[in-house]
Amino acid sequence: MAVAMPRYAFRIEYLGSPFSGWQRQDHAPSVQGRIEAALARLEPGLPSLAAAGRTDAGVHATGQVAHIDMTRDWDPFRLSEALNHHLRPDLVAITACARVPDDFHARFSAVERRYLYRIALRRAPLVFDQGQAWRIRRDLDIAAMREGAAYLVGNHDFTTFRSTMCQARSPVKTLDEIAISTRPAEAGTIVEIRLRARSFLHNQVRSIVGTLERVGAGTWTPDRVKDALDARDRAACGPVAPPDGLFLTDVLYETNPFA
Amino acid sequence: MAVAMPRYAFRIEYLGSPFSGWQRQDHAPSVQGRIEAALARLEPGLPSLAAAGRTDAGVHATGQVAHIDMTRDWDPFRLSEALNHHLRPDLVAITACARVPDDFHARFSAVERRYLYRIALRRAPLVFDQGQAWRIRRDLDIAAMREGAAYLVGNHDFTTFRSTMCQARSPVKTLDEIAISTRPAEAGTIVEIRLRARSFLHNQVRSIVGTLERVGAGTWTPDRVKDALDARDRAACGPVAPPDGLFLTDVLYETNPFA
Repeated sequence: MAVAMPRYAFRIEYLGSPFSGWQRQDHAPSVQGRIEAALARLEPGLPSLAAAGRTDAGVHATGQVAHIDMTRDWDPFRLSEALNHHLRPDLVAITACARVPDDFHARFSAVERRYLYRIALRRAPLVFDQGQAWRIRRDLDIAAMREGAAYLVGNHDFTTFRSTMCQARSPVKTLDEIAISTRPAEAGTIVEIRLRARSFLHNQVRSIVGTLERVGAGTWTPDRVKDALDARDRAACGPVAPPDGLFLTDVLYETNPFA
Repeated sequence: MAVAMPRYAFRIEYLGSPFSGWQRQDHAPSVQGRIEAALARLEPGLPSLAAAGRTDAGVHATGQVAHIDMTRDWDPFRLSEALNHHLRPDLVAITACARVPDDFHARFSAVERRYLYRIALRRAPLVFDQGQAWRIRRDLDIAAMREGAAYLVGNHDFTTFRSTMCQARSPVKTLDEIAISTRPAEAGTIVEIRLRARSFLHNQVRSIVGTLERVGAGTWTPDRVKDALDARDRAACGPVAPPDGLFLTDVLYETNPFA
């Protein structure tokens, strides 16, 4: 008789800067490896942790979701407290934990992912946002950026905006929203670019943000974004924005596992 | 004939955690010492930098103000860029710089100081707010904290709420405002306590916040804050809140030197 392995989902927050990304690697610190090491302190021989978004090196998360099958029946609150204890002093924290049905899959059950990209417009070096925003030393034309972004919303072939290393079978994705807002900071201005889609291609957000920055700087006209998209050619993309400003903020499911 | 020394004012942002405080010390890193070292790269033999608020170890600033008399005539923008260059890679930045009249004094000319104290209400360890908020693992009764805070606003003898090391001649100060607001964070809630006064006593903000936390936790009734104030006795104060959550955000002058 097969033993039922209780499945748990975690909501996870991490500072990406010290890590080579989410995915476990042999000779580099990864977020997955770090959390699996904490899990191994609770139960040896567990399977791999499956995540909704395999974030790149330096990319942060405030709302990553992952799941794992445990051997013992854990109270979800006690499980998250035990993991947070073993994760110290690294800047990785379990912010929610729930028992989920056996058919819940952090990656394949997700129906929407949300990313935030933060740009800091200021001359002075970053202090509190160091490593957590892309600093740009001049103004950006936000209206032009919104005009360029509008060409990307909807169902498109995003070949131009994905890494040549992207392993997705198809470059066709539906981008549901790109919202660009600004707010004054203590010094300068913070630009927040929020993107929503069922799923994203590898480097898609950073490719889009880097391209929109060219529009904001006035180097590209907004309709050049449409031309770049239509080209379906990676070479037509603008520069890829640095990882510092990127945050995986939310992963949505038909039923919120943490509700 | 005396040589005119042009006076410059700086607005300064810094992460307090790596420093033993604003004030220069012989054997510990200080913010003042760090900026004076950068200034010495531009002109040797300068006088001391005078600041509006001598923040304690671990206390941050987004809007500290300091002034100094230079020997050469500097373009303020070039001066701030040169200083920021020499301040790297430390998390200290000049966010504004201006030539000011000879009678401007960062400390003595200030007519208002503003502090922000940030509390993070959440179970999980802090990630992005690590070192930049006081984490409290339960809820606080904000209405009760506001009721307690109201007793402190106005002109009072704040002996209870100042460090025994405080060197101010008088414990009598006018506290113009304590505003307490909350906002949801990705995980938990952020409580922001903003205080305004012409000047503050040593440890006054952290003593007030630590006392109001007792009220929010339900350990103190709000009117015990009034009793503590009336006692004019340091022993009647609640615990002093940690430096992590404290930010000097603004220093105001009759005329804004950076306008």
